[in-house]
Amino acid sequence: MTQPLRLYELTGADDSCRFSPYCWRIRLALAHKGLPVETVAWRFHEKEAIAFSGQGKVPVLVDGDQCVSDSWTIAEYLDRQYPERPALVGDASLKATTRFINQWVADSVHPALARLILPDVHGVLDEADQDYFKRTREAAFGVSLEALAGQRETSLQAFRDILKPLRSTLAVQDYLAGEAPAYADHIVFRRLSVGADRQCPGVAGPGRSHHRLVRADARRLRWRCAPGTRGSRAVGRCRA
Amino acid sequence: MTQPLRLYELTGADDSCRFSPYCWRIRLALAHKGLPVETVAWRFHEKEAIAFSGQGKVPVLVDGDQCVSDSWTIAEYLDRQYPERPALVGDASLKATTRFINQWVADSVHPALARLILPDVHGVLDEADQDYFKRTREAAFGVSLEALAGQRETSLQAFRDILKPLRSTLAVQDYLAGEAPAYADHIVFRRLSVGADRQCPGVAGPGRSHHRLVRADARRLRWRCAPGTRGSRAVGRCRA
Repeated sequence: MTQPLRLYELTGADDSCRFSPYCWRIRLALAHKGLPVETVAWRFHEKEAIAFSGQGKVPVLVDGDQCVSDSWTIAEYLDRQYPERPALVGDASLKATTRFINQWVADSVHPALARLILPDVHGVLDEADQDYFKRTREAAFGVSLEALAGQRETSLQAFRDILKPLRSTLAVQDYLAGEAPAYADHIVFRRLSVGADRQCPGVAGPGRSHHRLVRADARRLRWRCAPGTRGSRAVGRCRA
Repeated sequence: MTQPLRLYELTGADDSCRFSPYCWRIRLALAHKGLPVETVAWRFHEKEAIAFSGQGKVPVLVDGDQCVSDSWTIAEYLDRQYPERPALVGDASLKATTRFINQWVADSVHPALARLILPDVHGVLDEADQDYFKRTREAAFGVSLEALAGQRETSLQAFRDILKPLRSTLAVQDYLAGEAPAYADHIVFRRLSVGADRQCPGVAGPGRSHHRLVRADARRLRWRCAPGTRGSRAVGRCRA
């Protein structure tokens, strides 16, 4: 039995509310590789708990004496370290086009979705995180969370426009990676599934109507936590 | 010597003004494959000239007794028909992620760029095409060409925002397809090079400042027309 890896995940006030899409894509990546994982709840104010990683953000993955941060770097690490297991980012050309999809989510999808859900995310956070979150996000977006909450209809339309290429691609193929999901799909899956499950009931998300990818990916991947994994309640909700 | 293929290309009033990005990606695809091509100038009002293809749009590629239309279908055809030559869309997974890039250009980049250049394109068209073009584009975008011309600054900012994932990807790798260009790059190349060369001087395009991909692709691919190819003046301008 492989020793479980340890994954530090961003968490709300409730221990089961793991809302970070960057952490979720690593959960999916580990399930894709068939690697057992033990997750550790982490909150913004607990910088010292991940200081050993030499930086201040999650996901942080600990694999024996190896420590890796940044989701893309972790995906590359997993392919390099476990080459005999199903590939996540694949060979050079596939990795290159997958990186574009990674950047599309980071630079286009993420900002559009954030405008839609930041007020709700603020509401599910641990009290000790709320001021930090409000201050940093309002500075990044140049608008108050209260104002964002009032712009939901406009933000929803902008978000839908951003998703057009995803929808037109999935109209002719099951996955971004073709016939089976790979890291390209894991990146998008959790970015869109916010609000499509009951994991963080306070976060409304963009609604269920255009979550074809989420439903298909969850149904086909059928990933499960390894026995004894912490946070398995949240994971269980992603099963088909 | 391989018999030249025949490519019908959208053309302005001047025979050398080949402004359609969908036609250009096929020129690049043919150069990538090392296949000689004879191009045929085609204008919107010449529907009967391509009636043999069973539809009314260019690019149309004629290869012996084969006739193929739609740029994506042509790229797939070229890989299938000439498998011994360098791959354009590659194997199943790479083709799937390349298709996403194709859709990103069609659904996000194209509409944003069109708002920027439609008034200029109208100005370089054959007189017999201008009414048709104005009527169909104004209906599609729900705004007059005159109004679009007055929104250039706003449209330029929106276009730059759309390009963010392209720019952040190319900050860490030379091509969308990795170390060497493939169809993913040809799709984007000509979509962005409008206005970056002197081929259609009336079309201002988005300016040269963010055409890193265009310059790199032109420099490395160093594609040329086959001797005797019509429209070679326009092609020559894409050389490094």
